[in-house]
Amino acid sequence: MVLHLVPRCSARLFWASPGWRRTYTQGTSVGLKWLGCPRDIYRPLACRGNSSVSGSPEVMLTAERYPVQRLPFSTVSEEDLAAFERIIPGRVITDPEQLAACNVDWLRALRGCSKVLLRPQTSEEVSQILRHCHKRNLAVNPQGGNTGMVGGSVPVFDEVILSTALMNQVISFHDVSGTLVCQAGCVLEVLSHYVQERGFIMPLDLGAKGSCHIGGNVATNAGGLRFLRYGSLRGTVLGLEVVLADGTILDCLSSLRKDNTGYDLKQLFIGSEGTLGIITAVSILCPPRPQAVNVAFLGCPGFAEVLQTFRACKGMLGEILSAFEFMDSECMQLVGQHLHLTNPVQESPFYVLVETSGSSAGHDAEKLTNVLEKVLNSGLVSDGTMATDQRKVQMLWALRERITEALSHDGYVFKYDISLPVERLYDLVIDLRTHLGPRAKHVVGYGHLGDGNLHLNVTAEAFSQELLTALEPYVYAWTAEQRGSVSAEHGLGFKKKNVLSYSKPPVAVKLMQELKALLDPKGILNPYKTLPAQA
Amino acid sequence: MVLHLVPRCSARLFWASPGWRRTYTQGTSVGLKWLGCPRDIYRPLACRGNSSVSGSPEVMLTAERYPVQRLPFSTVSEEDLAAFERIIPGRVITDPEQLAACNVDWLRALRGCSKVLLRPQTSEEVSQILRHCHKRNLAVNPQGGNTGMVGGSVPVFDEVILSTALMNQVISFHDVSGTLVCQAGCVLEVLSHYVQERGFIMPLDLGAKGSCHIGGNVATNAGGLRFLRYGSLRGTVLGLEVVLADGTILDCLSSLRKDNTGYDLKQLFIGSEGTLGIITAVSILCPPRPQAVNVAFLGCPGFAEVLQTFRACKGMLGEILSAFEFMDSECMQLVGQHLHLTNPVQESPFYVLVETSGSSAGHDAEKLTNVLEKVLNSGLVSDGTMATDQRKVQMLWALRERITEALSHDGYVFKYDISLPVERLYDLVIDLRTHLGPRAKHVVGYGHLGDGNLHLNVTAEAFSQELLTALEPYVYAWTAEQRGSVSAEHGLGFKKKNVLSYSKPPVAVKLMQELKALLDPKGILNPYKTLPAQA
Repeated sequence: MVLHLVPRCSARLFWASPGWRRTYTQGTSVGLKWLGCPRDIYRPLACRGNSSVSGSPEVMLTAERYPVQRLPFSTVSEEDLAAFERIIPGRVITDPEQLAACNVDWLRALRGCSKVLLRPQTSEEVSQILRHCHKRNLAVNPQGGNTGMVGGSVPVFDEVILSTALMNQVISFHDVSGTLVCQAGCVLEVLSHYVQERGFIMPLDLGAKGSCHIGGNVATNAGGLRFLRYGSLRGTVLGLEVVLADGTILDCLSSLRKDNTGYDLKQLFIGSEGTLGIITAVSILCPPRPQAVNVAFLGCPGFAEVLQTFRACKGMLGEILSAFEFMDSECMQLVGQHLHLTNPVQESPFYVLVETSGSSAGHDAEKLTNVLEKVLNSGLVSDGTMATDQRKVQMLWALRERITEALSHDGYVFKYDISLPVERLYDLVIDLRTHLGPRAKHVVGYGHLGDGNLHLNVTAEAFSQELLTALEPYVYAWTAEQRGSVSAEHGLGFKKKNVLSYSKPPVAVKLMQELKALLDPKGILNPYKTLPAQA
Repeated sequence: MVLHLVPRCSARLFWASPGWRRTYTQGTSVGLKWLGCPRDIYRPLACRGNSSVSGSPEVMLTAERYPVQRLPFSTVSEEDLAAFERIIPGRVITDPEQLAACNVDWLRALRGCSKVLLRPQTSEEVSQILRHCHKRNLAVNPQGGNTGMVGGSVPVFDEVILSTALMNQVISFHDVSGTLVCQAGCVLEVLSHYVQERGFIMPLDLGAKGSCHIGGNVATNAGGLRFLRYGSLRGTVLGLEVVLADGTILDCLSSLRKDNTGYDLKQLFIGSEGTLGIITAVSILCPPRPQAVNVAFLGCPGFAEVLQTFRACKGMLGEILSAFEFMDSECMQLVGQHLHLTNPVQESPFYVLVETSGSSAGHDAEKLTNVLEKVLNSGLVSDGTMATDQRKVQMLWALRERITEALSHDGYVFKYDISLPVERLYDLVIDLRTHLGPRAKHVVGYGHLGDGNLHLNVTAEAFSQELLTALEPYVYAWTAEQRGSVSAEHGLGFKKKNVLSYSKPPVAVKLMQELKALLDPKGILNPYKTLPAQA
């Protein structure tokens, strides 16, 4: 199999592109300020950035902040280091300064104390590393772009960090079917440019695309901005290569759209957050690049009108609807106050961003105009603006995408990522405002309305145990009552592993534990994550 | 949870609709002749039909035709029957005549000798039945519409047949999100009408829709005619309720589009052909019903031109392309000769059916006209016809959909369902014609080109061991060389379980066996299927 290099021309883009923001022309310095140094995806070290921000306070050790006990894994010895050095000469990192960033999650809430970072380039190397770790009972923390929201990508104690950063080669691309096969460490945005140049797009897009790795996206079953249109990775991922806990390479790297020969083993690893195996290569189906993209930004007088606007868009835009995002007025205030973004429409209780992607600019504009006329005339929408040119499209998207950034300027942020029946989506926000009263600075709701996915954020001047106690388990219990999900797209990782039971019955949790025991009997893969601690 | 009855008004349609054909006005008697009696989905018995066709020769017992040994399961005793009768009073069938049809697969190639058919109505009843069978070590054959192509839905020996036919209630439908929740025994076509009346369509459609059950569709990961547009059931199924081998009910019947709380357990059961658990309820996302459907039927001078036409359609039709099917000239001869269907275009080596589904009839027609002009003018297509009205759309679809029926009139049929890289799709047919020479009557290729899925069929005057030896493993080895799949959408069932290794490496087969042992340690669920016999 011939390895094709990902075109280097794209690299400059990401060099200046911090983790959680698109590459807008405006506000770059703000982005750098809050996110720390941009990650360098081409230099020898995977982990730089956050911890080297001068003046940043040291992040508290996870083991000190949370009640978690180290499991009886071995400790990395000089012999282990020598063995790793034989497998990946020159790519065994033990320098504390270089290790620092890889030990801290990007939200700077968790910190491990790993003493070694391994940077394999091939699945065979990953296999040899895991074979050694399995034999020696060494715990392993797989790490992609380290952009996760729930602490799944950093060690909790001294786990060996296995980075996919150097596994960044495109293996093949088929320009009729749109099938991309690549190593797990390819950065999503690099892949995005690669396939765009060939007339396709990646079936997923998310704010972290400048840093996140496709392997990490698959391991966490990332959702993001194109989910409404192109669906889940469970449908678009065609194949995976995975290294199992004992070093066995499981080759399910099929490029076929259809394959009903037995159990679909790759599904086990999608969304398992590195706890069942380490994904080393991905085969994924890319949709054709749309010829035309239009965005409308609308103000709605109430949430009922948001829902009716969604229904109208689904009906009238049909197959060209590619995003339906919403944000409340407090979100708009925050992006204005902290990022100086301007509200392009008149002040409203709610705002909606509608995106269409289609194969005919004329047809799409006509459809969108028709639906806008309808929602404006019927009072569902009080004001709106529409964009077809790239610059304005990006400006409108920035209002929605930079909410996370604005929140981080507002103080300490308690973050929840909830799935709910769409008609109850905002009730939780309203209810929580009453429940918290003046203890919270802001309680805001925004998210992927089209997917029933609410991002609920609560800010306060500083971390407060009292506020946390008021929030949890209240938010989880409320969600469970609606048969919602306490983690729509972020996964469980370290932070949410103990709230699993709010969304899964005991029978399911037990089966998860049995699968873990089957695939990783020693429990060395990403321990302390995803599965609740067993009694 | 309120159970809503599926509207009875649809029943008449299916009464007269045999298993493998849409309800066309023409040729019903032909359909009845080759398919046996239509299945009665509303009368008390699930299994009638094929075996009661007067004059049909008795199907040879599977155990006599194939080298298969009965595993040491218990035999159903009078006490077992009494226990079943206590669980589902009046729904324990032991009458040999009534059992006959459920013992035979619809292709009339396999016959088991089960002595009992159970017809539960609820998951709780399924749970109690399995708890009993597990304790007693009784093997169980789950059966939906019994329309499978690989013998997965009939017993091999005397397994207890557990039919989902009476589990046919819609549980809920959400008319904003399009989420349907229903019991596993709902017939696909009944569901299709149910959601169509509410402005949606099912995300899958297949020839067997008049008989097949949604639970069986999910258990076999059915592909079919809408796969190109709406993707795999792995993306559209939102939740499942499953009864495990020991009777435990696993409730993953979520209606959420996004849920990243731990391993996605439902994926284990999608496509596992009833060997890991029995699906009792399904939650599935239905797309909005398209406002306009157009079909074009085209003649192409060669397979290279078929591929280029596909590329042009993908590029110019984009999001409205909903099917791209192909058939060769021998298929057209057979539907003409045996079913008297008329070729609507001039004779060509290949024919293509292109379907669009969209939200604006005008826009869609314009797009389709543009692409047709292009392919006609560039010589990719030599002749074509287009249909927008329902009757002509159905007539054009009949040419493609009734090929299976035409083949069955041509003699004994050897059937293969292969996934291949799209550019090699037809090479196998050409190669096989040379390889078989005059031993075969016809070697034909057709299928879902848009999904890389070839239906390869070889006919002969009668079954011939010599021909079979020439075909197998030749076809499988050829497919394996291209990294294709030896079962694109039909599954493995009983007939193909031993060719699994042509598409899956030993590590994957071993992991499949470990999963089976974990979930069904006694191996009572659909034994002799899917997994190769262990050495």
